[in-house]
Amino acid sequence: MPSHFFDVAAAAAFSEKKMTKINLFESPRMFCDVYGLEPGQAQTQHVHEGSDKVYFALRGTCVVTIGQDKRELHPGELAVAPSGMAHSLSNESADRATLLVMMAPHPSFKG
Amino acid sequence: MPSHFFDVAAAAAFSEKKMTKINLFESPRMFCDVYGLEPGQAQTQHVHEGSDKVYFALRGTCVVTIGQDKRELHPGELAVAPSGMAHSLSNESADRATLLVMMAPHPSFKG
Repeated sequence: MPSHFFDVAAAAAFSEKKMTKINLFESPRMFCDVYGLEPGQAQTQHVHEGSDKVYFALRGTCVVTIGQDKRELHPGELAVAPSGMAHSLSNESADRATLLVMMAPHPSFKG
Repeated sequence: MPSHFFDVAAAAAFSEKKMTKINLFESPRMFCDVYGLEPGQAQTQHVHEGSDKVYFALRGTCVVTIGQDKRELHPGELAVAPSGMAHSLSNESADRATLLVMMAPHPSFKG
């Protein structure tokens, strides 16, 4: 049986190639990932129809755009991209950034 | 239009009466709350059939029980209660505890 407890920042991983996603938990109802972004890495603008997405900044700083609203997300701050709203993510700082990311429902659960 | 950005710990609230829930975002797909627990406050054991719940500790320490698995949840740690699994929450420390809590899908969305 998988554990129900996670040290989120410790689970983060980083790659020089691209933003790294580590899954902590998934079901048809949701996924819970940790994203690791090296400086300069980004998730380009995209939309999920039918799923809401939450970003919570754990370490470092990312620029998050939700619709027309663009802000720096600092540790302890959360951004919500509701279903159908375009969003993007970019680490424009000199340091690594770690985010907790949840989406509901899971857009592509394979079981 | 509601904001898409939140300072989570700053949104927390506390009451001597009982554990306090502040909603940041909700839809039929999920809710995202901040829980504030004074020392001694708790959420008794309960089960959600059809929804997954995630607890992420922001400040302070809570004892979290997921099924038979009981642990102290410290800041930066996350606990998942999958659909159908009994879970409870208890602040057994001398300090306030703040948690980010998400559930998907929302068990009682009223719009």
